[in-house]
Amino acid sequence: MAAERSTGSRRDFLRSVGIAGGAGVLYSAMGALGLAPVPDVRAERYRPPSRSDFTLSGRGAKKVLVLGGGIAGLATAYELGKAGYDCRILEAGDRPGGRNWTVRGGTSLTDLDGRKQTASFSKGQYMNAGPARLPQSHVTLDYCRELGVELEVFTNQNANAYIYHENSAALASRPIRWRTAKADVYGYVSELLAKATDQGALDTRLTASDKERLIAFLQSFGAIKGKADGYAYTGTDRRGYAVEPGAAFEAGTVLGPVPSLSDVIASGVGQRFSFELGYDQAMLMFQPVGGMDAIPYALAEAIGPDRITYGARALEVTDLPDGAEVTYQDARGRVRGQRADFVVAAVPPMVMARIKHNLGAQVTAALEYPTATPVGKIGLEYRSRWWETDEHIYGGITPTDMDLSTIWYPSYGYQGRRGTLIGYYHFGANALSYGALPHEQRLARAVSQGVKIHGEKYRSELERSFSVAWHRTPHIEGGWVGWPSQDGPEYKLLNQPAGHVYFAGDWLSHVIAWQHGALTSARKVVTGIHERVMAA
Amino acid sequence: MAAERSTGSRRDFLRSVGIAGGAGVLYSAMGALGLAPVPDVRAERYRPPSRSDFTLSGRGAKKVLVLGGGIAGLATAYELGKAGYDCRILEAGDRPGGRNWTVRGGTSLTDLDGRKQTASFSKGQYMNAGPARLPQSHVTLDYCRELGVELEVFTNQNANAYIYHENSAALASRPIRWRTAKADVYGYVSELLAKATDQGALDTRLTASDKERLIAFLQSFGAIKGKADGYAYTGTDRRGYAVEPGAAFEAGTVLGPVPSLSDVIASGVGQRFSFELGYDQAMLMFQPVGGMDAIPYALAEAIGPDRITYGARALEVTDLPDGAEVTYQDARGRVRGQRADFVVAAVPPMVMARIKHNLGAQVTAALEYPTATPVGKIGLEYRSRWWETDEHIYGGITPTDMDLSTIWYPSYGYQGRRGTLIGYYHFGANALSYGALPHEQRLARAVSQGVKIHGEKYRSELERSFSVAWHRTPHIEGGWVGWPSQDGPEYKLLNQPAGHVYFAGDWLSHVIAWQHGALTSARKVVTGIHERVMAA
Repeated sequence: MAAERSTGSRRDFLRSVGIAGGAGVLYSAMGALGLAPVPDVRAERYRPPSRSDFTLSGRGAKKVLVLGGGIAGLATAYELGKAGYDCRILEAGDRPGGRNWTVRGGTSLTDLDGRKQTASFSKGQYMNAGPARLPQSHVTLDYCRELGVELEVFTNQNANAYIYHENSAALASRPIRWRTAKADVYGYVSELLAKATDQGALDTRLTASDKERLIAFLQSFGAIKGKADGYAYTGTDRRGYAVEPGAAFEAGTVLGPVPSLSDVIASGVGQRFSFELGYDQAMLMFQPVGGMDAIPYALAEAIGPDRITYGARALEVTDLPDGAEVTYQDARGRVRGQRADFVVAAVPPMVMARIKHNLGAQVTAALEYPTATPVGKIGLEYRSRWWETDEHIYGGITPTDMDLSTIWYPSYGYQGRRGTLIGYYHFGANALSYGALPHEQRLARAVSQGVKIHGEKYRSELERSFSVAWHRTPHIEGGWVGWPSQDGPEYKLLNQPAGHVYFAGDWLSHVIAWQHGALTSARKVVTGIHERVMAA
Repeated sequence: MAAERSTGSRRDFLRSVGIAGGAGVLYSAMGALGLAPVPDVRAERYRPPSRSDFTLSGRGAKKVLVLGGGIAGLATAYELGKAGYDCRILEAGDRPGGRNWTVRGGTSLTDLDGRKQTASFSKGQYMNAGPARLPQSHVTLDYCRELGVELEVFTNQNANAYIYHENSAALASRPIRWRTAKADVYGYVSELLAKATDQGALDTRLTASDKERLIAFLQSFGAIKGKADGYAYTGTDRRGYAVEPGAAFEAGTVLGPVPSLSDVIASGVGQRFSFELGYDQAMLMFQPVGGMDAIPYALAEAIGPDRITYGARALEVTDLPDGAEVTYQDARGRVRGQRADFVVAAVPPMVMARIKHNLGAQVTAALEYPTATPVGKIGLEYRSRWWETDEHIYGGITPTDMDLSTIWYPSYGYQGRRGTLIGYYHFGANALSYGALPHEQRLARAVSQGVKIHGEKYRSELERSFSVAWHRTPHIEGGWVGWPSQDGPEYKLLNQPAGHVYFAGDWLSHVIAWQHGALTSARKVVTGIHERVMAA
């Protein structure tokens, strides 16, 4: 605890320096404190409530009722439970996790419109219908460690996967491997910048030694020719091989021909590259072994399964002078009530907005302020792993400009007999148009597009499928939400308690659509409740 | 078989077109045949000998003696054995695999100079002392599939790992995360090229629409500002965060400050980027679960362990009019002889050059022609996985300009209690200087350098270690070999049989230092022997 406090102080010092003096001062201060290159500020920040906090204080842990058994609700009950709080969760669905949902054989889903699917995936095959990837910096990994959830690499990037643009101004409808796209784009970019640099076009920005070093970099980065050859990019084995090098006299045949500079630029493949540079998307990324729902099931197990009531739909939330009360309908249709010292509403805002409450019209308006994003995903189980055997694609993602958006190759079960692709993952308009269709039509549309990239086996080897449209899924109603503004009064209002009622969820964070957002939001509410109890 | 023949013809057609008409024609022909984007030529190429080949032919499988139980020797015996050949392997060491070697607790090594180490790694901890990564296109993966060797991702790239240059002209001795280095280099490169393009410096090379599209790409790729702001790069959250975004009002603090253009170029971080673009090194890459030696052990099991004699040092190879003979010393020191129809020498060329033979002085000269590369690696077992908990580095590689060269974070056992880094992997002069030291001094030198990047925990958390200097390892004597030329008579000579004696190994391929080279070389020899037997 002493260590945590001193860490806290150090962090406060750093932040204050950072805020007062700009990032430069912050960085120097970090170095001075021996914290450079990158301090792990986040992980040291949260101090969970502890049973020992109550010792000799005369205070006791309170009763907390949590609405929603998604990640935020589970984490709230888990963290408070560790300190002895009496937590209960009311979950409208029949499982923990919310959008963290792994679909296996036997899993079923009835959409808001009444359409029902039941997955028939083979044993060992699954799709993560919601979150599927974990960045290294997210607190989600700390929970996995604490809960014993085993991890493996999620393959968010693969040089052998394709980029497929059917509407580009050049190279249209040709699947181009990421490695080929990078070789060509980096090659031509290097050629152009080396030429311009050499010709003095950037002399106002570059010193002589800058120029020399920059050109040396570009020669390595672009695998371009030397000055005598005009720094030309003419191809490299980074593009891949049409015939693989091998024994004796087989030196390999590099994939060709190299498209022209103009065609490479017009193909738009380079527009895909920034994805892999994104803070949340850069490899390495991870997934729980066996399915993302290992996280909510581990949380539920740690909380105590008897503390979670499934099939419990909240009808009304009432703040009281000394606590709060929830009225709900249980799985048998009976209306029941529960009282607690605090209520944590960890449900999507648009769902919460429709639950009767006495928290005021401003709360309702604030809950209605963010808008839900439509999101869709389909799992396609194949009887063979043709992407591995025929195309040497072991994991990764193929982005397209078709309305399926992206195809994901599985990050588990390599070289097994069967495998399950994600045949589309998309949001916004694409998710709306697919989601409006019955499953068989979603499937047919996704497969007819996938065939353009992978050929007829994309259809002929297919055996089973399952699709989810999150915006049409009961109790959830969206993939995530977007705030018109997170600087306004609505966001601020919901980030503070309404009497004895707190709100939690990724939607109350700056990391929306990630479990990290839900977990840090839960931690904030947990800290708020505990500080209030201790101060009382 | 019919399918294989028709595939063969299609492939022959493609290759003949490729050779006659250049890669452009090849690519078009591929498209015409419905094979674009990338045909899987290699995997369809090899036709293994089969027992059925002998049916009604009046011929029978022959006896083959293989010298060396490394990957090439094992694959030779495995492939011939499937067709009924009576294969025996004489291996000088006490295990299969050669340089494919996984070191665990209890593994010992006595160097050529008599220095002995015995590894004391904890249960479940290991280091792959030789090959450690498998590209998706290599035939090695096909053997893993066929042999049931389970795979997982090898983490050859990680945005959270560092680049560490202590001798650079700027930013020296600061560990810089790959993500930060990429954000800054791509940012400034984009700024420079956008400026030059906008100012018309490349108008002879770019049309108006090229320019427009190129600048749009650069804005996405570099996360730079718009024209009004001179396309300036001023930083982005791709660099990483000093304070991670989280709940409520925590929007995060982006890591800063952004070094100047001149400093970023002078730091040399960009020179590291081409590694990840290399045909053999681009992610995704793979490793067998539990250690690389799963491959040789699976091969040995398939061959039949009784067919491999360990501790058998070849003394003499004699080509005879109707076969060949090998004299060797067995594990008890007895000199013995074995005759066979064919001998396959699958040992390093410099080792083979010293074995007495009657194959002619040209063969000896050719064997002495390639030179061995010194290679060293050290495994460091830590009592905690501080790189994961403190620095959010789950796998990947940190390159440095120190003589340790690279540090590798483990690709297995994530979030476990212990973990084993590779504390150096280097070759050439660095491997020679480390290799000359006793283990304790290698260790001290490697740790004192690692401390510069990771701090004192790099020393204080360390518990066990093991190092290998391949050039000082009996029967192997090098990490791999380099040919002054693979176009000369020496390489050609050894790629054909000397009477009844064949040579095999990665050193007889265009994929040296990879198991793919050894496996394809073995396949070539197997095909050569089988065709000779069938034609006799």
